[in-house]
Amino acid sequence: MAYLLSDHQYGKAESRMVRIYRDTARHEIRDLNVTTALRGDFAEAYLSGSQAAVLPTDTQKNTAFSYTKEKGVATIEQYGLELARHFVSEIEPVSGARIEIEEFLWERAVIDGVEHDHTWLRKGQEVRTAAITVDATGEYVIAGLKDLIILKSTGSEFAGFLVDGYTTLPETHDRVMATALDVKWRYAAADGGDVVGGVDWDGIYASAKAIMVKEFATLQSLALQQTLWHMGTAVLDAHPEIVEIKLKAPNKHHFDYDIARFGVEQKGEVFHADDRPYGLIEATIAREDAPAAHDAWKFSAGLA
Amino acid sequence: MAYLLSDHQYGKAESRMVRIYRDTARHEIRDLNVTTALRGDFAEAYLSGSQAAVLPTDTQKNTAFSYTKEKGVATIEQYGLELARHFVSEIEPVSGARIEIEEFLWERAVIDGVEHDHTWLRKGQEVRTAAITVDATGEYVIAGLKDLIILKSTGSEFAGFLVDGYTTLPETHDRVMATALDVKWRYAAADGGDVVGGVDWDGIYASAKAIMVKEFATLQSLALQQTLWHMGTAVLDAHPEIVEIKLKAPNKHHFDYDIARFGVEQKGEVFHADDRPYGLIEATIAREDAPAAHDAWKFSAGLA
Amino acid sequence: MAYLLSDHQYGKAESRMVRIYRDTARHEIRDLNVTTALRGDFAEAYLSGSQAAVLPTDTQKNTAFSYTKEKGVATIEQYGLELARHFVSEIEPVSGARIEIEEFLWERAVIDGVEHDHTWLRKGQEVRTAAITVDATGEYVIAGLKDLIILKSTGSEFAGFLVDGYTTLPETHDRVMATALDVKWRYAAADGGDVVGGVDWDGIYASAKAIMVKEFATLQSLALQQTLWHMGTAVLDAHPEIVEIKLKAPNKHHFDYDIARFGVEQKGEVFHADDRPYGLIEATIAREDAPAAHDAWKFSAGLA
Amino acid sequence: MAYLLSDHQYGKAESRMVRIYRDTARHEIRDLNVTTALRGDFAEAYLSGSQAAVLPTDTQKNTAFSYTKEKGVATIEQYGLELARHFVSEIEPVSGARIEIEEFLWERAVIDGVEHDHTWLRKGQEVRTAAITVDATGEYVIAGLKDLIILKSTGSEFAGFLVDGYTTLPETHDRVMATALDVKWRYAAADGGDVVGGVDWDGIYASAKAIMVKEFATLQSLALQQTLWHMGTAVLDAHPEIVEIKLKAPNKHHFDYDIARFGVEQKGEVFHADDRPYGLIEATIAREDAPAAHDAWKFSAGLA
Repeated sequence: MAYLLSDHQYGKAESRMVRIYRDTARHEIRDLNVTTALRGDFAEAYLSGSQAAVLPTDTQKNTAFSYTKEKGVATIEQYGLELARHFVSEIEPVSGARIEIEEFLWERAVIDGVEHDHTWLRKGQEVRTAAITVDATGEYVIAGLKDLIILKSTGSEFAGFLVDGYTTLPETHDRVMATALDVKWRYAAADGGDVVGGVDWDGIYASAKAIMVKEFATLQSLALQQTLWHMGTAVLDAHPEIVEIKLKAPNKHHFDYDIARFGVEQKGEVFHADDRPYGLIEATIAREDAPAAHDAWKFSAGLA
Repeated sequence: MAYLLSDHQYGKAESRMVRIYRDTARHEIRDLNVTTALRGDFAEAYLSGSQAAVLPTDTQKNTAFSYTKEKGVATIEQYGLELARHFVSEIEPVSGARIEIEEFLWERAVIDGVEHDHTWLRKGQEVRTAAITVDATGEYVIAGLKDLIILKSTGSEFAGFLVDGYTTLPETHDRVMATALDVKWRYAAADGGDVVGGVDWDGIYASAKAIMVKEFATLQSLALQQTLWHMGTAVLDAHPEIVEIKLKAPNKHHFDYDIARFGVEQKGEVFHADDRPYGLIEATIAREDAPAAHDAWKFSAGLA
Repeated sequence: MAYLLSDHQYGKAESRMVRIYRDTARHEIRDLNVTTALRGDFAEAYLSGSQAAVLPTDTQKNTAFSYTKEKGVATIEQYGLELARHFVSEIEPVSGARIEIEEFLWERAVIDGVEHDHTWLRKGQEVRTAAITVDATGEYVIAGLKDLIILKSTGSEFAGFLVDGYTTLPETHDRVMATALDVKWRYAAADGGDVVGGVDWDGIYASAKAIMVKEFATLQSLALQQTLWHMGTAVLDAHPEIVEIKLKAPNKHHFDYDIARFGVEQKGEVFHADDRPYGLIEATIAREDAPAAHDAWKFSAGLA
Repeated sequence: MAYLLSDHQYGKAESRMVRIYRDTARHEIRDLNVTTALRGDFAEAYLSGSQAAVLPTDTQKNTAFSYTKEKGVATIEQYGLELARHFVSEIEPVSGARIEIEEFLWERAVIDGVEHDHTWLRKGQEVRTAAITVDATGEYVIAGLKDLIILKSTGSEFAGFLVDGYTTLPETHDRVMATALDVKWRYAAADGGDVVGGVDWDGIYASAKAIMVKEFATLQSLALQQTLWHMGTAVLDAHPEIVEIKLKAPNKHHFDYDIARFGVEQKGEVFHADDRPYGLIEATIAREDAPAAHDAWKFSAGLA
């Protein structure tokens, strides 16, 4: 019986790097968690233990750090593309490179009403993400965000659902809806083509986030599914560069706490924010003519 | 422009349930973290917000709890199959069900040399896992373990690797090798067939774990890749019921601490156990004639 | 030999509660993690197992939830005082009550430039805290914040330190300094008196935070100790109501990454943000005439 | 107005170190998380920023690593005492040293029924701890364990408790009781004396753990308080070297899941293991003639 080494990759996960721009007195900061993974013909490392084709994960890490200076980090999408291209073009056994990045956001400290030149505070829970793949089929950029914690205290219903013998949930037409959004969108790329030319990574990121927050806030929600659909399609409507979007949203339950038992008026003001379990809704929305994704959605350890 | 709702599922993630068997004075315990996810035609929940086809995640949770009594938890594989089949066969809009389970292991407290009837201590870091899929194409059982933390203090080398301008890692022929194993193996199932008949879930779990630990310990390792290959193929050699195995292993680096600087003899005895970054090796090994996996490897939130 | 039950308390830890104010279309939100602990003569619960004097922790939880409506949550300090007083005055065996609160902060979603009435995004990493003690010696309010993650990319030195045979650290006159501030300050209270009268809890919180951020940013730091001293004394200078302040600051190391090895210019722009170990500086600064703290600093599980 | 720097310490927290003994083919392993904190006259570091008296935390870390070889780690108590004495006796400005240690436990891999010489699996969740203080008043050793997760499925009651208007909890005479024990015990030390002479650190650790597990299992529990009292006094009864013991036990609630709603027999077999909130019981038991603890219980960041 023969065995197939059917799917494999290796790399360095979660290199925590901070890049400071300090060419002027007003510094800039980029705070990253970078994972690299290489794909290619590394079968001998498994079969015979030979490392002759294996670029050490330590080397991948060194390169990732050095590239924050050599190529800079204008955006994580640009940086990730540069790094992925390097591995594929410069390291002979590598046929595909995957770079996954979390970016932690900072805002300038405001001192006496003025933004400070070189002091920052961590901003929000939200993490900006990028997942770049470069291989023989082309270049793929998936941008996104995760841990965007958002809550609305009304404007959400859940009723008319399917009922069976295990169903005890009451219907509601006014509930708290809260989630920690995890959204990733894929940019168009002609097969074998280059996605980079002229994409405004920062602008689209800001726009996509604003659109999703607006839909979440303003839609009278009949279900989290409906809200996600509106968020996703609104992003696709606004940005033709985006061909596919995946949304994952835990339904962070806020249960009405029964204070009527204590003779206290109960009208939807006191909630227990429960940890587990949580509902989980996952959906992918794509343009009908979206080009093939190939391995673009094949995650490593950095993101999932 | 039309959009496609191309891939979607919903369910209740991470219901933490404990099932006690107390029919005799000697109790038994099963400690589970259960995630359910349903697949099917739920497009209207997205498009119009209608929940008419949607079995609430709360109902899924109720069913999962009740089934620990109704069907019991002889093994997580058997329990997961029963639960998945229920959703597919009893709930009309459901065409596929996915059940993901973590099982936390306990061992009996030993009091004055005797195992106690109803007191347990949590055992190890290791978590036993199962991921069951039932849909129109058949039934699929993936068993596994994660967080099996294992370390060897010699018998591991890393040398002869590819070198480029970013490579600074020295070669070594004697290092600490440590990982937190995450392994999942898929059982054979004829298309549309039933995997359950006669599989010894507990026995194969114990055997697969023992085989992997033995390979890790006894192979003179030239690379973590080689160790994984030996672990995976040894499991396939021993268990014809298993057709495919995925291994994910973070290389938990233990760096030699330079105590020679302080005039202290340095000979591989003092290590810094670093948190991040870590190497990460991922590989899938399959039999040449393995049946198609269909959606068996499509994970929800419970496992990844 | 007799044993003393010398120090004991019990309560309900980490009740996660969300209070919505929805009297007008513009809702308000308070998101809390509340821990209660009761002190008193509960010896019989230990010695004989009698629960006659024990108010269940479940009851404490119910009370804490109900009080968010009965008394409201104008501030966590006011809410905590009301709750603590209730337990001491209404529950006979209770001689002292301790309430510890974490408040998670939200900011309104901004839709098309306008703040939304009932949708919020979680704000920052920073958590506002309060620890209230009411007992026979008086009422004590400790306010504070934790996980305020702050970083400066210059303006920090570390040199001229004590050197011994284990010292290998080079001196530096320009480094990144980063920390996750955990600061708690105690308000004045005459013995047996009432601290509440007229204290502007929200105003002082905002002011103390602004003062500390300013000191962190603007002081040329010779050591984290010096920075903490300036932060703490500046708060005491500005707010006579505060009599004592405790500061705990992990030194989150950012190590210069050696990219000169790769022929790349190295001038303090690329850093490895290490996880562990970290330096840890802890200091308490008090007014000379600060009243006794009694049990005010005796923490339960909510904060530490 | 003058301010007092009333309480301060600094050090290096959470150095993760692994010490391998490899003098013979059968290796031994010690896996530690070490925190050092120094106390003394470091006021100038705060007031003027002068570091002349400050031994860098980096140096403390170097020393801690080197001492695992120089002095060895026969036990964490012995190692911690050596390290604390070093700082107090060799570093002039240091008047007190605090060493806090977590030890992660491993067990040998068993291959074909035989313990392996150099491969281990991580053992249990339990962490062994030590907190050593050496200062002008003497030497203090606190040993302990944490995260010992223990559960009994019967033999636990909770009834006859105090009831008020917020009490809704039903009485029970048969419930699941589970906790994650955090226990620390202080060894006797004559003031200014040396605790080390002849104490069997490993033997007492094993004995104390076995005693506590036995009491937890065999006592018909009327309350967690009563169980803790029996555990603590049983340890004091057995070990005259121990003068004081602190027990902290979260009541990890297991709620009966209502499956009778689904027509399924409900008799205490199906439980929801809830995350938060949890009851929390804390108690200290001391011998009447226990010597003064001075700063022995003043924790740094390693333990709490």
